[in-house]
Amino acid sequence: MLSEAEREPRVAGGHVVAGDWGTSHLRLFLCDSTGACLESATGPGAAASGGRFAATLNTLLAPWRGRYGGLPVVLCGMVGSNIGWVQAPYLSAPILPVLIAKSCIAVEHGRVNIVPGLSCRNPFGVVDYMRGEETQVLGALRLNQALSSGRQILCLPGTHTKWVVIEDGCIGQFFTAPAGEVFAVLRDHSVMVRNPGGSPTDLKAFNDALRAFNAFPQAQLLHRLFECRARQLSGELSAPQAESYLSGLLIGSDVLGALQLLSAGAAAQSVCLIGSPDLTSLYSAALSFHAVDSLQLDGASAALAGLLEVHRHLPQGVLSHAV
Amino acid sequence: MLSEAEREPRVAGGHVVAGDWGTSHLRLFLCDSTGACLESATGPGAAASGGRFAATLNTLLAPWRGRYGGLPVVLCGMVGSNIGWVQAPYLSAPILPVLIAKSCIAVEHGRVNIVPGLSCRNPFGVVDYMRGEETQVLGALRLNQALSSGRQILCLPGTHTKWVVIEDGCIGQFFTAPAGEVFAVLRDHSVMVRNPGGSPTDLKAFNDALRAFNAFPQAQLLHRLFECRARQLSGELSAPQAESYLSGLLIGSDVLGALQLLSAGAAAQSVCLIGSPDLTSLYSAALSFHAVDSLQLDGASAALAGLLEVHRHLPQGVLSHAV
Repeated sequence: MLSEAEREPRVAGGHVVAGDWGTSHLRLFLCDSTGACLESATGPGAAASGGRFAATLNTLLAPWRGRYGGLPVVLCGMVGSNIGWVQAPYLSAPILPVLIAKSCIAVEHGRVNIVPGLSCRNPFGVVDYMRGEETQVLGALRLNQALSSGRQILCLPGTHTKWVVIEDGCIGQFFTAPAGEVFAVLRDHSVMVRNPGGSPTDLKAFNDALRAFNAFPQAQLLHRLFECRARQLSGELSAPQAESYLSGLLIGSDVLGALQLLSAGAAAQSVCLIGSPDLTSLYSAALSFHAVDSLQLDGASAALAGLLEVHRHLPQGVLSHAV
Repeated sequence: MLSEAEREPRVAGGHVVAGDWGTSHLRLFLCDSTGACLESATGPGAAASGGRFAATLNTLLAPWRGRYGGLPVVLCGMVGSNIGWVQAPYLSAPILPVLIAKSCIAVEHGRVNIVPGLSCRNPFGVVDYMRGEETQVLGALRLNQALSSGRQILCLPGTHTKWVVIEDGCIGQFFTAPAGEVFAVLRDHSVMVRNPGGSPTDLKAFNDALRAFNAFPQAQLLHRLFECRARQLSGELSAPQAESYLSGLLIGSDVLGALQLLSAGAAAQSVCLIGSPDLTSLYSAALSFHAVDSLQLDGASAALAGLLEVHRHLPQGVLSHAV
């Protein structure tokens, strides 16, 4: 058996720093040439960086650069937005994954590459956007080769849940449901729940809401939300249970509506869920109400795989400049 | 022509104080025996009364009592809830309006009567509640006799919009859409709009949203909300316009869903809207998208008429005790 030093010679050329720099957090991963994560670091989000993106990054990279020399960096997320370091454009979908890497915006003399976002016309004919999720999609396609074959549905649940159609490996139409944000603002600021800060999911209340919601699939969500409060007044739910009931209504609405929108092409048999395991498991439960299977991929792993995939496909000129 | 003194002898027996004591505000109206409002006063809402309901009320009534002696008082709203003075029960609908007056809860030795709320099983088979709106419904029935004939649809738009069916003068099933609360929390706390405090309605943006929403009546509202943000990113909407667009989506969803729920009986030809004129006019526009006419009644006038109607039908024993 080879020693680590023999297997992975620590030369700068083989190492890369992958970073997910969102609105609230920066997460950096030092990876070796095989894509294995050696170390990680965290820093302030784009909204709290005060415009000092280069300084923030260089401070965090200093110890790694001391050991590995010049390190190429690939960043995704809001760092590429109008509140970020530089505005990386929104590329129009449908788009081949490899073209995303080719369209990165280089800063710091080419050492740092920032992944562009995507835009499309959604099923309502309205412009829609994603930034950050495109990298998780790239990672999912890398981690699961089967997703590049035929028509596949990906769902990235979160603050702004994204539903994405993949056609023969090409990223197609997508649309957004701000289920997580609506949940959080109603939990923290409305009389529907009154459970600021939140409680762990009560699965019985969550499933009760899924069942209640799906019993009237033509109803508007707006006419179901007051149940969270009414069922507390009647003594049927506690405040923490009402929070889970609200979650069930919102995720039930998101899943039902998405499946209806997506069935215009062909009924989904399976959906690939990409996100935090606690959230993808709730979406999996909601999908199972419609007899749709799901595959769950961890969102952080998908983001890292996507960043490394982008790094592999960066134009050589930029790469040589960066190393 | 009679002088005011000749026409309306100022004896305590003929005067009444009507009050709408909600969560945030107390509004008192001194009325003469004809129901004309002579004076008004305001005080803290039920949530800010610190339990000192009798003291708060007596302080506000003191100048009027100095002139008119003992005055009967009728109060509606959250003053009768579990955060109020005394818990007035939720009466089960369907219910005849006159029974609401008969079920008032008397305090202060019978001088103050508090109107009960209503509950029902809504179209989803879930318990639903109203408190305060029942009094506006009573007022609307008093102000517009035609509403007591046949099947009538009333809509009371607001923080928690209530849709109410009246069958031959009997208050029947109702349901709630927290359209106003969802609007306010998304406007003030989400990235959908980012226009805290709000702007006057931009009617073009509002109508654009109604048109966009109604073009896909089977879609889930959740998949339309992100448009408020996306259309700002694309430069189609300013933040104040996005706020009005959000309002259009929510009111469009409320009206569409309510008409679908109510059409199980018979398609609505007309809806009586009760509320603030700026809000009922927006609902009227949303109804006209479905070729449904509307009659608009001022909510404050309806509440006052309802309180006086309750006063007229109070059990005599309580009345004599109060005067």
